[in-house]
Amino acid sequence: MKKPTWVIEKERQKRAAAAETVWLFGLHAVRDALMNPARERLRLVLTQNAANKLAEGIAAGGLEPEIVDPRKFDKHVPLAPDSVHQGAALEVKPLNWGSLEEVCVQGAGAPLVVLLDRVTDPHNVGAILRSAEVFGARAVIAPHRHSAPETGALAKTASGALERQPYLRVRNLSEAMEELKSLGYELIGLAGEAKLTLRDGLSASGMAPIALVLGAEGPGLREKTRELCDHLVKIPFAGEFGSLNVSNAAAVALYAASSR
Amino acid sequence: MKKPTWVIEKERQKRAAAAETVWLFGLHAVRDALMNPARERLRLVLTQNAANKLAEGIAAGGLEPEIVDPRKFDKHVPLAPDSVHQGAALEVKPLNWGSLEEVCVQGAGAPLVVLLDRVTDPHNVGAILRSAEVFGARAVIAPHRHSAPETGALAKTASGALERQPYLRVRNLSEAMEELKSLGYELIGLAGEAKLTLRDGLSASGMAPIALVLGAEGPGLREKTRELCDHLVKIPFAGEFGSLNVSNAAAVALYAASSR
Repeated sequence: MKKPTWVIEKERQKRAAAAETVWLFGLHAVRDALMNPARERLRLVLTQNAANKLAEGIAAGGLEPEIVDPRKFDKHVPLAPDSVHQGAALEVKPLNWGSLEEVCVQGAGAPLVVLLDRVTDPHNVGAILRSAEVFGARAVIAPHRHSAPETGALAKTASGALERQPYLRVRNLSEAMEELKSLGYELIGLAGEAKLTLRDGLSASGMAPIALVLGAEGPGLREKTRELCDHLVKIPFAGEFGSLNVSNAAAVALYAASSR
Repeated sequence: MKKPTWVIEKERQKRAAAAETVWLFGLHAVRDALMNPARERLRLVLTQNAANKLAEGIAAGGLEPEIVDPRKFDKHVPLAPDSVHQGAALEVKPLNWGSLEEVCVQGAGAPLVVLLDRVTDPHNVGAILRSAEVFGARAVIAPHRHSAPETGALAKTASGALERQPYLRVRNLSEAMEELKSLGYELIGLAGEAKLTLRDGLSASGMAPIALVLGAEGPGLREKTRELCDHLVKIPFAGEFGSLNVSNAAAVALYAASSR
């Protein structure tokens, strides 16, 4: 009997996920990933100079570095031409953080998570991971598609947080939102046109676990996402012009939620 | 009689400042600068495609565009190779916002300003200008040297705010701090090791005009800057690891100050 198309597709996705690897780069990102026991590491490519600086990481990582000529570094690793690699690159597997329920119910810190609706810029997502860690959020959650993959650029902006802060990629954001609701989370969506302020929306949620939902700059939250939120709130603006960068909006919302 | 060295140096700096021009790029930044009556414009270089999209801005700007072949755009304007110019570049003079006293005393909005101590990354300063505008700060103030110049990259991250939000470059940050004090401002410096929280520091300042002082990531505030602050405060962190990106710290501090 022939396999149905959806089974073939599912198997293909599984193989693709298993094959998925990421090149991290830059001294900080590479050191953090070498020091992280949960990180599956595949190849470490360094200049001699970078190897000297990363001695501790190399010892901890248990992976023989390939020392290359600085002038030929780009020939050895597939990085974007403007990557500030500092002579250090590490091929890794994405981290496995476990299920949404495991992370959001049993995770460390306060019951606080961030959901991203099609935020695709790796620098923004990296900065959000960094703020999420600082304010003790349990996870940053984004759909597999239409979100920023765990790339080297994201790792660099996250400044170490990628190794420590759960970044969960889910199949479907709406399903994740429904699941968070069933786990007791209140879903607070940020939308410029909302009537309620961030502060009042957080007050209305009392001491319930909080999921902050942010959309991409420009389009904002999608209709479906918006409907699933318990409250839509705005950050009060003084002027008529301008809008916050999404990572700055996330930092403000995380600060307000964590200092309730 | 020969001029003393310091006079020669001062004259040289004056000539350099007068000669200083900036290339803004990208459809949004160029449109915003074309629509800004206060902006002195020198050259407008566009692809035909970009010219069609900027028709309104071209009419408002009163500057004949030079239409160039998209494949040769980089030959006509001195942009960094990775600049996402979208076929639009505009050479301008930096904006003249007036004196510190004029802006900080008579400026629009709440008596709230941001001081940057050696924050040199244009993307961070651009994002800070954007947040400063959103939260109604009167100015972002930075020293001439060791700060991010008004470049195209900064303008792009500022997303229009560079045209509207005063960005004052001062000769000496300490002098500017002293002047702000004499104008009644309370100087609140952000420092990770501070005892006081941001919220308590703001409360302690009552309804006084507020100057938020932020240092570069890593070094933080310099000793001299630190001493001149009325209060040192920290944003409370949940975890042991990590730190906020400087533009995210600025957004949180501006939110807290503007929502007192």
